[in-house]
Amino acid sequence: MAKKITARSKDYSQWYLDVVREAQLASHSPVRGCMVIKPNGYELWENMQRGLDGMFKETGHRNAYFPLFIPKSFLSKEAQHVEGFAKECAVITHSRLVNTDDGVGVDPASKLEEELIVRPTSETIIWDTYRDWIQSYRDLPVLINQWANVVRWEMRTRLFLRTMEFLWQEGHTAHATEEDALEEAHRMLEVYRTFAEDYMAMPVETGVKTASERFAGAVETFCIEAMMQDGKALQAGTSHFLGQNFAKAFDVRFQDQDGKEKYVWATSWGVSTRLIGGLIMTHSDDNGLVLPPRLAPVQVVIVPIWRNDDEKSRVMEYGNSLLAPLRDAGIRVRFDDREQYKPGWKFAQHEVEGTPLRLAVGPRDVENDKVEIARRDTMEKELTDRQNIEKKVRELLDTIQSDLLSAARTRTREQTRTAETYDEFKQILDSEGGFIYAHWDGTAETEEQIKNDTKATIRCLPLKPEKNPGKCMVTGKDSPYPVLFARSY
Amino acid sequence: MAKKITARSKDYSQWYLDVVREAQLASHSPVRGCMVIKPNGYELWENMQRGLDGMFKETGHRNAYFPLFIPKSFLSKEAQHVEGFAKECAVITHSRLVNTDDGVGVDPASKLEEELIVRPTSETIIWDTYRDWIQSYRDLPVLINQWANVVRWEMRTRLFLRTMEFLWQEGHTAHATEEDALEEAHRMLEVYRTFAEDYMAMPVETGVKTASERFAGAVETFCIEAMMQDGKALQAGTSHFLGQNFAKAFDVRFQDQDGKEKYVWATSWGVSTRLIGGLIMTHSDDNGLVLPPRLAPVQVVIVPIWRNDDEKSRVMEYGNSLLAPLRDAGIRVRFDDREQYKPGWKFAQHEVEGTPLRLAVGPRDVENDKVEIARRDTMEKELTDRQNIEKKVRELLDTIQSDLLSAARTRTREQTRTAETYDEFKQILDSEGGFIYAHWDGTAETEEQIKNDTKATIRCLPLKPEKNPGKCMVTGKDSPYPVLFARSY
Ligand SMILES: [Zn+2]
Ligand SMILES: [Zn+2]
Repeated sequence: MAKKITARSKDYSQWYLDVVREAQLASHSPVRGCMVIKPNGYELWENMQRGLDGMFKETGHRNAYFPLFIPKSFLSKEAQHVEGFAKECAVITHSRLVNTDDGVGVDPASKLEEELIVRPTSETIIWDTYRDWIQSYRDLPVLINQWANVVRWEMRTRLFLRTMEFLWQEGHTAHATEEDALEEAHRMLEVYRTFAEDYMAMPVETGVKTASERFAGAVETFCIEAMMQDGKALQAGTSHFLGQNFAKAFDVRFQDQDGKEKYVWATSWGVSTRLIGGLIMTHSDDNGLVLPPRLAPVQVVIVPIWRNDDEKSRVMEYGNSLLAPLRDAGIRVRFDDREQYKPGWKFAQHEVEGTPLRLAVGPRDVENDKVEIARRDTMEKELTDRQNIEKKVRELLDTIQSDLLSAARTRTREQTRTAETYDEFKQILDSEGGFIYAHWDGTAETEEQIKNDTKATIRCLPLKPEKNPGKCMVTGKDSPYPVLFARSY
Repeated sequence: MAKKITARSKDYSQWYLDVVREAQLASHSPVRGCMVIKPNGYELWENMQRGLDGMFKETGHRNAYFPLFIPKSFLSKEAQHVEGFAKECAVITHSRLVNTDDGVGVDPASKLEEELIVRPTSETIIWDTYRDWIQSYRDLPVLINQWANVVRWEMRTRLFLRTMEFLWQEGHTAHATEEDALEEAHRMLEVYRTFAEDYMAMPVETGVKTASERFAGAVETFCIEAMMQDGKALQAGTSHFLGQNFAKAFDVRFQDQDGKEKYVWATSWGVSTRLIGGLIMTHSDDNGLVLPPRLAPVQVVIVPIWRNDDEKSRVMEYGNSLLAPLRDAGIRVRFDDREQYKPGWKFAQHEVEGTPLRLAVGPRDVENDKVEIARRDTMEKELTDRQNIEKKVRELLDTIQSDLLSAARTRTREQTRTAETYDEFKQILDSEGGFIYAHWDGTAETEEQIKNDTKATIRCLPLKPEKNPGKCMVTGKDSPYPVLFARSY
């Protein structure tokens, strides 16, 4: 199998697509820009959802569901939002098809009075609803999350990383005070950071976006940024402090404890199936997918090896006997007893699919009460006792989880550099890439120039900047502290 | 609170809407026909999803995700399917908005070459994909489920029961033989029946649809039908045997073990947020929602009662001490310690929201080590010992679950009648309604006439008909067995 995967060193983009295909995560669909998420990919997403949803509920949020469609006029209610989102989107203009000679056609009589937009994000429809939900300070905070599909009309798409339709969660909260809303935006950023590191084993930088990279309609956009193996950054999640922008646009006011009527303060925050792209590019290798155990659909696969019927019955029974102790220990285990495939084929398949641990059992193992245990991340094998196999497996899964995070941390640290001059900056970008800390004069003009010159953008400004003044690498003007640049997905 | 709910005897439709509103399950949205599912309603759906998803996985299915959009031409590939679905649907014709003087307008230059339809159901896009997935008998069966939103352009909508956009699951399976596919269709019907009865405490009739009520593109449609309190039936789930119709339309063939190329056999099956409407109309009363414990978001609520600070501290501590044993027993419990609401208000609120059990604790209970426990379904109260409260609660929850099913079974049995003559049939319909077994001559013409005369339809034919011949109540022609009629939602 592995030979079907292009080496990263040869063509990183092709390697990525090869891994997605061979690990059976997703495929293109006949609808341009939309993907089919295959069971292996969807189970990853389900595990991500489970982890995130638990963290959302622990922080007091409840799930709800709002309409897929947004009246066109809603998008123009918030001035910045319309600029950012009322552009490339799916527009519904008719509501009926009729039979024609060669199939079906659109019935002109079914033209809608007002066009509907397939949601690119749900701030507008949700804040229109919050007007009914919120009257008094007693109704606040409103802490809602939605798991949904959204559509943005993208021309250049890449499986998981950028697709026309994608799956995501979008949190939308309403608060009585600016302080509460800001606290919430920071809290959810921290939830994302924790999830990325603890579940995905993907270290992230947290920070604030510049005005030009801010979400359309936000006062501040906070983000987590991860560094991929090829030296490009991936924006993995965002948390927005929306101020009172949407409350004012949709007239959402409340009577405060002091009896005064005030506009509500807002946040929104989201992560999407894009995380799967980040997961792939953080850990995988030239042999295929590598998965952190906490998210792996199958954590351990057992492969039986036998040559004749006598061996078969003993090996099958032995392999089967490993299932109960592993399952009882809460481990997601699969016994791959399919007879139409040979062990070598199975080894290759589970390798490319990224199963963290493989247990192989043959006739000699049955005799000696042993199991061969192989790690996907390091490819190391060892012979271990059958007794207490669940303890050994649990320990190894925990080790893999933390080793993957350590390895990604080390790599990211090595990919993080400082540039003193613009020449040095460009030279780093064109050789290794990665994160670059450099001084910037704080203007949108210089930011734009750097982007045009180098394709690098400011990924974020520090959340809590320490005084570390210098001179902008481009203009030489004063800069209070360095900011984080990278080329990105 | 209860006075805000219209009595069922006065206006059943208004009662339903009142319960949905007062239990905070859902509300209308500014997009005509689309609903907002509020947290109380969405948690019900999450619990339904969890139950169903577990049953799907136990029967070997895996989840996947297919595109929201379907190219217009796909809908015309299967002859019956186009008739049934290429009608009232959301048609996307453009992909860009532009700023105008008074907001945003559709950019005429962004007109799509081929229109896209928002999926009303996914057979076409999925079978187009299965062509790539299936080459050999080794690739079969394909057992896939999708959790998704779908859109059907409905004009007359009712919250949960019929909405333009709804949430559902759709299973799509592919098999090597007709027998395997039929077996799957029956298996999933049985999963639905089990779910309806064991989780929803909603008894159902299972059967086969007549040709005129069949899913567009199916060879046979099997269904579960439930009887609501007002004597109208609700189609609660369907499982379709699709034959080779979609395989032929999308050219999905496989090489069988005998070396021959054959078309694949198919099923599809689905249930939706409509189930929530069925749940409401099965158990609820004039005081609001009544929920079966297995699906209730909160199974037990604890309400503290106190008049002064001294009582407060003792009662709060006592109430709090009940949480751990209940949680440890796997019970979904909430301590409603909100101070801005009085106990009486809380009692009314949890009653209308259908929380199965309410525990009230006051100063005297603290003294006597007692808890007042109240059942929502029967409104019965009793004083119980604090010790082993989790055992008592668990028993009562189990009792409520089975009592609700028994009560619904008894009601449904009483609502099931036999009509010998067409006059008797009409008389039953206009008095009590309910299910009516009657003889029918097997023709679409008579079926249509009955529908036009009485608004009643054949809900289903028996799955395993026993010989019980008679004469059609309308035409007097021979009938091999009676079939099940009802007016329906
Ligand atoms: Zn491609
Ligand atoms: Zn209404």
